Amino acid sequence: MISRRAFLGGVAAAGWSRGFGNPQSNPQSAIRDPQYRVDATTLRRRIEALSVFGRPAGGTFADGVSRTAYSDADVAGRAYVMAQMRVAGLQPRIDPAGNIFARRAGTVATMAPILFGSHIDSVPNGGNFDGDLGSLSALGAIEALAAAGVRTRHPLEMVVWAHEESYAFGRGLACSRIVAGDVTPADMDEIWNGLRRGDAIRKIGGHPDRILEARRDKGSHHCYLELHIEQGGTLERAGIPVGVVEGIVAIDRYEAIIAGVANHSGTTPIADRHDALLAASHLTIAVRDAAARRPGRQVATVGRLEVTPNSANVIPGLVQLSVELRDLDPRTLTSMMDDIRTRARDIASTTGTTIEFRELARAAPAAATPEVQAAIERAAASLDLRSSRLPSGAGHDAQMMARLGPMGMIFVPSVGGVSHSPHELTAWDDCARGADVLLRTVLDMDTV
Amino acid sequence: MISRRAFLGGVAAAGWSRGFGNPQSNPQSAIRDPQYRVDATTLRRRIEALSVFGRPAGGTFADGVSRTAYSDADVAGRAYVMAQMRVAGLQPRIDPAGNIFARRAGTVATMAPILFGSHIDSVPNGGNFDGDLGSLSALGAIEALAAAGVRTRHPLEMVVWAHEESYAFGRGLACSRIVAGDVTPADMDEIWNGLRRGDAIRKIGGHPDRILEARRDKGSHHCYLELHIEQGGTLERAGIPVGVVEGIVAIDRYEAIIAGVANHSGTTPIADRHDALLAASHLTIAVRDAAARRPGRQVATVGRLEVTPNSANVIPGLVQLSVELRDLDPRTLTSMMDDIRTRARDIASTTGTTIEFRELARAAPAAATPEVQAAIERAAASLDLRSSRLPSGAGHDAQMMARLGPMGMIFVPSVGGVSHSPHELTAWDDCARGADVLLRTVLDMDTV
Repeated sequence: MISRRAFLGGVAAAGWSRGFGNPQSNPQSAIRDPQYRVDATTLRRRIEALSVFGRPAGGTFADGVSRTAYSDADVAGRAYVMAQMRVAGLQPRIDPAGNIFARRAGTVATMAPILFGSHIDSVPNGGNFDGDLGSLSALGAIEALAAAGVRTRHPLEMVVWAHEESYAFGRGLACSRIVAGDVTPADMDEIWNGLRRGDAIRKIGGHPDRILEARRDKGSHHCYLELHIEQGGTLERAGIPVGVVEGIVAIDRYEAIIAGVANHSGTTPIADRHDALLAASHLTIAVRDAAARRPGRQVATVGRLEVTPNSANVIPGLVQLSVELRDLDPRTLTSMMDDIRTRARDIASTTGTTIEFRELARAAPAAATPEVQAAIERAAASLDLRSSRLPSGAGHDAQMMARLGPMGMIFVPSVGGVSHSPHELTAWDDCARGADVLLRTVLDMDTV
Repeated sequence: MISRRAFLGGVAAAGWSRGFGNPQSNPQSAIRDPQYRVDATTLRRRIEALSVFGRPAGGTFADGVSRTAYSDADVAGRAYVMAQMRVAGLQPRIDPAGNIFARRAGTVATMAPILFGSHIDSVPNGGNFDGDLGSLSALGAIEALAAAGVRTRHPLEMVVWAHEESYAFGRGLACSRIVAGDVTPADMDEIWNGLRRGDAIRKIGGHPDRILEARRDKGSHHCYLELHIEQGGTLERAGIPVGVVEGIVAIDRYEAIIAGVANHSGTTPIADRHDALLAASHLTIAVRDAAARRPGRQVATVGRLEVTPNSANVIPGLVQLSVELRDLDPRTLTSMMDDIRTRARDIASTTGTTIEFRELARAAPAAATPEVQAAIERAAASLDLRSSRLPSGAGHDAQMMARLGPMGMIFVPSVGGVSHSPHELTAWDDCARGADVLLRTVLDMDTV
């Protein structure tokens, strides 16, 4: 068996010796054993049960969910998941940032835990698979090992990250970011929609006054794994059930503040107007053009737009909108933003408005660890499932954990590539396959 | 003295014989008498006092007002005005639609009242002159006559219309429209932001269950007069203190409903998107172009726009926006809307969205009565004030009253043409001049 240090240095997986702290010492046979399966029926029932928290009034599972971070629905959904963790014999604990953790002991006391999980908060009008699948599969994987009487060498630690989606406070990956060390006590004083961030974190059981204690050290976990829906259409189009994530794109997010002059819509001639919404419309088109005009897979989106005063008979005096840019290469983001700023200067001049950009958040790209990618591929192969490598266009808490140690992500297909929508769907069979690949990747990673 | 019927038929003003029910029988000398003045100091103080109801927290008069119809601020502002009416010896009464009326008796019992006033509700983040000036000047005019011991032949009736601005329920002129007869009991069941219209009207003291009793008959008033700020820059640019309104433009208002597909902003390639906000941006530009590309004074505005789900990391799936068109000639509105529909078809096809238009409201143009215009011009001349005729680009309750009898409007200059904004301003001297012109027009109209 090689040292953990050597592993982190990237020794080829094929050369490693392996060993289990349980009766079966050959992982290749272990992960082929049909008893190492996540209970698919329980997984489905839990996803369906969780969907009730944040469901639109009178709706069904197909109507999606609005379980935004810190909402009452989020609090209730977290309570449901913690109750299920207790049913599985785990003792959930909430860290100062509001993240839910629970451990199952391993056989080697000195080993760092294998950490795996996802989140359960959603965007407004989101779907029931984004985050939920990875969180409840993590629980299912631990239960499967318990049911099979398997004790791993490494402790296993499941996590349900708080506040993953970029809605509350205009930022996402908020609480895994704290664990990765990117936090100051002053961050707790941030205000969003009248809500103080510290109070939001306290609402979900965190301790904002002890927020720095949520930080973890580099190497404090053996590796981080996350199962997630692809949220794009690549796997479905290719007919491949398992995606092995190569890395997570960089994301830059800005707020554009467009100031014109509010005035009466009936008495102000077209030529005399300083219409902030007209300028915002041109800017929205410019943001799209910045992504569309170059080759590559970069994307650019205006997802949020607020008009003031927002009345049919008043020329808009102020518009605030989000500009979000994504690509694996951060230089592409810079170049797109340069284009947008140039167009914005023209638009401001033509429409008689001012346009300012405020940087809200930058997420660096995060590469998945090659050895973990290889482990996921072996896990898929052990289940006779085809897999393929692909980048993640979405941000994930995994990119924060990549700062602390080895990281890998498993993707399963999204029907029609639809996500962040009530129409988000992953076939139940694909959910089960993903959960099994997660379980077997845990076992594989336990051998090193 | 000619009959009222003959007056309504449009007999030339110069040919009318005149008479007062007070010691001075020559109206030309009466309206030149300096005692017939509205108290400018009281008028200013009342406008300032009223501005407190709906003022932003911690703000000043210059920060404008948000006294939207049916808000708590509206209820409080109405109570203030009714208290001031009582101070002036009037008995305010609220009709079933929520409008505030009060009468001062005339000397000829059979004569129909001269009706005059305005409104005190505002747009969100509006100014302190729009409506307030006309309402409080009406009160000042009645007080001035009482102070001078003048008794008119016609009863005088002041009115403060409820719900003039197009914000609540997406419609304006709502309660004068009821008085003009355009109402059914079912209208009271309309819902806006969870508020039933009948409950809104009840909140301001109306009786929605007796709403039909708010209707008035044609000829039930002698004429309707309204003093208002211009809300455009024509008078100020020309250096003319008094505008005589020729007519009020037609207004068509639509809601555009743009449906795309909400999806994840990171995982959905630009080419695969159905972005409702991108389509809305093109449509907003098309609406502006429809007005800008033809000669004339027509205007077209997108003032309200709502994005669903409105999150930085979700491609917008739904946008609803207002389209408002105004011109004196209704055919221009039809032609602009034809242009917009044609462009919308192209936009929907290019962006992979659907665009539907729902007609929200149509207001017909309303001509001011020539004889009333002439009376306003005489009133201005009696004060040695220059006046000029102009159309009103804004809708006013006066257009509803034009359905029931003769109508005229007096405009005073708006600084910079700014209105529906906290920066809305009319010089106090211009306010006082307008109030005096209103008073003298009342006296002039009392002679026929």
